[in-house]
Amino acid sequence: MHRNKLIEQIKEKRSYLCIGLDTDESKIPRHLLSSSKSIFEFNKSIIDATKDVCVAYKINTAFYEAMGMRGWEAMEQTVNYIPSTHFKIADAKRGDIGNTSSQYAKAFFETMPFDAITVSPYMGEDSIRPFLEYEDKWTIVLGLTSNKGSADFEMLKVGSGDNKEMVFLYEKVMQTISKWGTTNNLMFVTGATQASQMESIRKIIPDHFLLVPGVGFQGGSLQEISMHGVNNDIGLLVNISRAIIYAGDDENFAEEANVIATQYQHEMSSILETKIIQV
Amino acid sequence: MHRNKLIEQIKEKRSYLCIGLDTDESKIPRHLLSSSKSIFEFNKSIIDATKDVCVAYKINTAFYEAMGMRGWEAMEQTVNYIPSTHFKIADAKRGDIGNTSSQYAKAFFETMPFDAITVSPYMGEDSIRPFLEYEDKWTIVLGLTSNKGSADFEMLKVGSGDNKEMVFLYEKVMQTISKWGTTNNLMFVTGATQASQMESIRKIIPDHFLLVPGVGFQGGSLQEISMHGVNNDIGLLVNISRAIIYAGDDENFAEEANVIATQYQHEMSSILETKIIQV
Repeated sequence: MHRNKLIEQIKEKRSYLCIGLDTDESKIPRHLLSSSKSIFEFNKSIIDATKDVCVAYKINTAFYEAMGMRGWEAMEQTVNYIPSTHFKIADAKRGDIGNTSSQYAKAFFETMPFDAITVSPYMGEDSIRPFLEYEDKWTIVLGLTSNKGSADFEMLKVGSGDNKEMVFLYEKVMQTISKWGTTNNLMFVTGATQASQMESIRKIIPDHFLLVPGVGFQGGSLQEISMHGVNNDIGLLVNISRAIIYAGDDENFAEEANVIATQYQHEMSSILETKIIQV
Repeated sequence: MHRNKLIEQIKEKRSYLCIGLDTDESKIPRHLLSSSKSIFEFNKSIIDATKDVCVAYKINTAFYEAMGMRGWEAMEQTVNYIPSTHFKIADAKRGDIGNTSSQYAKAFFETMPFDAITVSPYMGEDSIRPFLEYEDKWTIVLGLTSNKGSADFEMLKVGSGDNKEMVFLYEKVMQTISKWGTTNNLMFVTGATQASQMESIRKIIPDHFLLVPGVGFQGGSLQEISMHGVNNDIGLLVNISRAIIYAGDDENFAEEANVIATQYQHEMSSILETKIIQV
């Protein structure tokens, strides 16, 4: 998906909501389990009920891989079902030496029609490049993640390069990798639980889109992350998974997902008004 | 697999060879392509022809994912076919927030019977812990990888902690993560192209097993990496993929794979003699 189309969708819907399909068989409503396609049926209902208030869906590959073959099948069915108006993210956290990353790119950009994949930066340039070679496909590099473990390595101080100034590792990652791609094919993950870092992040990458997990169950504030993170093109995709998809646990689960997703969309709409952005 | 069993296998076979099943449909002998199970048939032949001279197989998940559902099926068939005497590694480079890493652990340790999975350290402790919770299963953390991109972040200088000494990021990763697990459930990836770093690595983690890619097509030296890397329990699994599995490209591919694998086993046997280890 081209950047302009994504921005157009966001402005039209007054929403930068991404819904995370972290679908876990042990958490979906019991009545669905009689179907052999229970995971896909669940996702289908969630998508139907929420597509008008969100602009993206994020499929967390781990939950599908845990189910083996039928999980992989459900992932393929789901990504093929998401409307072409919506930005499709494989939250896969892949990354390997060049010839292997090329295979991951093939898996998610050719064999499956994802628009974007999340990628770990640890192994450096040749692990990232193969993903950037696809037109209108996006590489979403882990920057500063939403979890507690982000303090272990992402927040280590490293040399920034020419001068002796020390920066956090995640800042160095953003500085370095932003040069390998463009604002048309590269985003960074920035956890909503890290709002205090958002201002310095926007100094490094003012124009890039950020994928923001951590609102909802993980406790990040949509207000706070948006106030510091929204740029002239909005520039955020805020992901919410469990708080929406598991809002209900009975026959009405899709309606209840719609209620929560719509609440978030309203909140986003208000934020965009406050920021007085031309939408 | 328990550490003692792995060491026993290595000493018995005088081999610390791991064979990488990076099976790519465009590279396997043409005559196999008539079968709908061509990937599994290829792997099966390679395993049958090499199992006596190696102690481990490493399945690179990217190559299977690139083929979609039937690739995932071939991966499951392959890991189930590998004899129980052999250490089974999912080279998957996974890692995510805690509840997601738990799903990856389930995928590779429960749904499939792998003994080990490679994991990226970037997201820190809660992304690694779920893998360590399984008895006799192994977490193989990326330390210093074999690719050119390892210079981008892994070789950055970071503060080591209490004192002001600076260390490489990969050293900090090894120092930190070695405290989260034990020598019975934790290994580190160290590329064979990085032999100059092996001495300092063995100072940080003298007793851990290392998974060593990069010999063969990537140009790493088996002699050099072994001279500095072998410890009292041998402590190395040296992976070779393309140089063995694509040794031949016709009906005799399995025999040719056996020839090359046996050459490596002989070289390893000589190295172990030179190191005068009680094997």
